[in-house]
Amino acid sequence: MTSLTAEKVTVDLGDRAYNILVGPDLIANAGTHIAPLLKRGRVVIVTDENVADRHLATLEKSLTAADITSQAFVLPAGEKTKNFEQLQSLLSDLLDAGVERGDLIIALGGGVIGDLTGFAASVLRRGVDFAQIPTSLLAQVDSSVGGKTGINVPQGKNLIGAFHQPRLVLADISALKTLPPRELRAGYAEVVKYGLIDDAPFFNWLEANVEKLMAGDPQALTQAIVKSCQSKARIVAQDEREGGVRALLNLGHTFGHALEAATGFSDRLIHGEGVAVGMVLAFNLSAKLGLCSGQDATRAARHLEAAGLPTKLSDIPGDLPSADRLIELMGQDKKVVDGTLTFILAKSIGGAFITRDVSASDLLEFMTDQKAV
Amino acid sequence: MTSLTAEKVTVDLGDRAYNILVGPDLIANAGTHIAPLLKRGRVVIVTDENVADRHLATLEKSLTAADITSQAFVLPAGEKTKNFEQLQSLLSDLLDAGVERGDLIIALGGGVIGDLTGFAASVLRRGVDFAQIPTSLLAQVDSSVGGKTGINVPQGKNLIGAFHQPRLVLADISALKTLPPRELRAGYAEVVKYGLIDDAPFFNWLEANVEKLMAGDPQALTQAIVKSCQSKARIVAQDEREGGVRALLNLGHTFGHALEAATGFSDRLIHGEGVAVGMVLAFNLSAKLGLCSGQDATRAARHLEAAGLPTKLSDIPGDLPSADRLIELMGQDKKVVDGTLTFILAKSIGGAFITRDVSASDLLEFMTDQKAV
Repeated sequence: MTSLTAEKVTVDLGDRAYNILVGPDLIANAGTHIAPLLKRGRVVIVTDENVADRHLATLEKSLTAADITSQAFVLPAGEKTKNFEQLQSLLSDLLDAGVERGDLIIALGGGVIGDLTGFAASVLRRGVDFAQIPTSLLAQVDSSVGGKTGINVPQGKNLIGAFHQPRLVLADISALKTLPPRELRAGYAEVVKYGLIDDAPFFNWLEANVEKLMAGDPQALTQAIVKSCQSKARIVAQDEREGGVRALLNLGHTFGHALEAATGFSDRLIHGEGVAVGMVLAFNLSAKLGLCSGQDATRAARHLEAAGLPTKLSDIPGDLPSADRLIELMGQDKKVVDGTLTFILAKSIGGAFITRDVSASDLLEFMTDQKAV
Repeated sequence: MTSLTAEKVTVDLGDRAYNILVGPDLIANAGTHIAPLLKRGRVVIVTDENVADRHLATLEKSLTAADITSQAFVLPAGEKTKNFEQLQSLLSDLLDAGVERGDLIIALGGGVIGDLTGFAASVLRRGVDFAQIPTSLLAQVDSSVGGKTGINVPQGKNLIGAFHQPRLVLADISALKTLPPRELRAGYAEVVKYGLIDDAPFFNWLEANVEKLMAGDPQALTQAIVKSCQSKARIVAQDEREGGVRALLNLGHTFGHALEAATGFSDRLIHGEGVAVGMVLAFNLSAKLGLCSGQDATRAARHLEAAGLPTKLSDIPGDLPSADRLIELMGQDKKVVDGTLTFILAKSIGGAFITRDVSASDLLEFMTDQKAV
C-alpha cells in the first residue's frame, strides 16, 4: 500500500451531517477516529462471520489502543441475515450488552451488516448512534451514504426500515484486497451508476480506468469511491427522505429488485449484479421508447460487461419467471406511488430522470423481448 | 352531549407540526378531518377488539361518508399486543394490504394501539403517515403527543421504538363515556403529572374539579385534555428527541416502569397506576432528600388518592420483589445514562427537575422504607 492519506467526504444533512473517510488502513486506525464520538470508552461491534475472520481482530486492537473496550456480535454472513428474526435477536443482544442512549454501535461489514445494524441502532431505545465500517465496495459507495437502513421481508427487499444517519463512515480501501472478485465487480455496478445518472465525465473516466480499478489500484479506487460518495451525498442532501430527486439513485433498482426476488435473493444474482442488469434494462427501455439513443444503451452495457458484470436476463443462471411475473415483482418495490410503477430512465449517459409514464403494454412487450435476448 | 365544538392544540415541530383536536363526536366526523391528508381515497385502520366493538363502525361510516374506503385490522386488546410478534404480523398485513408511501394509517385505540401502529408506520417502507384517534384518556393526554412509538421486549417496556409524529390527532371525549372507570382514573394520573411538573395553578384547578372530571363532565374533560396536551406539546417542541427537558415528562415513570415490570405488565398495575405510585415515590424521595416539603408530597398523594388511584407500594395487589430488585428494574428503563439512574424529582408542586444525584445508598434506604409503608 502506498502512503495515501484518507480523503474526506462530508454528507451535509444539517444536525445529522457526518463525514466519510476514504483511504487505506482505516480499520487499523479506527480507534483514533471513533474515540471523539464516544461519551464513555466502550462500543459494541456488529459484524458477520466472514468479515470477523478478516478484520475483527484488527479493529479490536485499534480500539484497545485508543482505550475503548468493545464487545462483538458475530452474525451469519449473507443476505438472509437481514430478516426480522435476526433483528429481534440482535436487539435483544444489544439490550443485554447494556447499550444505552448515547452509546455507539459499530457496523463492521458489507451492506447486510450495515443495513441491519443501522436499523437496529435506529429503533434501540428509539435511537442510538452508529458508525459504519463498510468492508465491501458496494457498501462503501452505496449503503454507507444516506442513512437508509432496513431488513427484508417475504413481500420484498428493504420494505421495513428507517432513515438513520451514521455518525461516521470509515471506507477502508485496504479491506477491498480481501474481497472476493465477484463482490468487487458487484460493487462496481453502483460506481458506474453515478456516472450513468448525472456525470458523463465520470463515466468516461471509469471507461478509461476499469482495468486499474478491477486490479485494485489504491489511487484509482480511492478516487472512484470518493467521487461516488460525493455524488450520492449531493443527491441525498437535496432530498434526505426520498420525496423526489433521491429516486434517481434507484436507477436499475426496480428491475434489479424484481430479478433478485425472482432468484430468491440468492447467490444466483447478488445485489450489484441485479443493479447491473437493471441499469442495462433501464437504458434499453429508454432506447425502445425513443428517449435515448441505442448507442448510449449499448455503451452502458459494454462497460458493465467489460467489468465482468451480467447485463442481460440470459446472463442470470437458471430459469426466470414469465415477463408478467417479473413485472408483478417490480410492483412490490417501495418505489410505487398510487399503484403506478416509477422508473428511472435516461436521455443519455449522465442524463437519468424519473418518470411514471411507462404504459403497462409497453412494459410487457419490452420485458417479453428482453426475455428472448 | 352539549354543543361543544372541538378545540385545537398545535404541536409545533417545524415540518413535522401537527394538530390535536379535542372535543365531542370527533370519531363520528373523522372523515372530514382525515380527507385533506390523503393522496388517494383509502386508509387502513388498526384497532383492538374492545375498541372495535365500541367505535369501529362509527369511524368506518364517517370515512365512507367522506368517500374514503378503509380496511381494518383488529388486534387483541391489552399491553401484551405491544410486542415483536404483533409488530411483525401487523407489518406483513399492512404490506399485503398494499399500503404505499404516501398512504395514511389510522390508529384507533388506546396507548397500545397508538404506540404499536405508530411504530409500524415509522418503519413500513421506511416511514408512512399515520393519524391517531386515541380512545382512552391516557392516550389522549400522553401517547398521542410527541411522537414516541414503540413496543415492549422481555428486557423492558418501550425499549424498541421510534420517534414518529402523527399527521393529526383526534381526541374524542365522547369515547371516554365508554371507557372503564379504572382506565379513566389511570389516564387521570398523567393529567395530574402536568400540574406536578411545572404548573401549580393547573394542579389547583384539578383539585377543585376532580369530581366533575371523574364524572365525565365534557367541558371539564375538554379543558383538562387541552391543558395537558398544551403542556406536553410545549415541552416536546423544546426537545423532540429527549436530549434534555423532555425528560421531565418521565416524572413518576422510572419508578412506575420498575413496578410495571415487577408485576409483569399485567392487570395488577396498569400504566397510569404505575405512574401515580411512581409520582408519589418521586415526591416522597424528594422530601426525604430535603428537596421539597413533606406537605407537598402529602398533597400530591392525597389528590391522586381522591381520584381513586394507588399511591403506595402496598396499594399494589400481590407481592412485590425486594427493594434491590426494584432498583435493578429501574436500571432497565431507557432513561439511563452512563449506568447512572436519572430521576425526576421536585422542589414543590409544579417544580420538577432532572437529577442524577441520588446515591445508591439513599435509594436503597428509601425503597426499603417505602416497602414497609
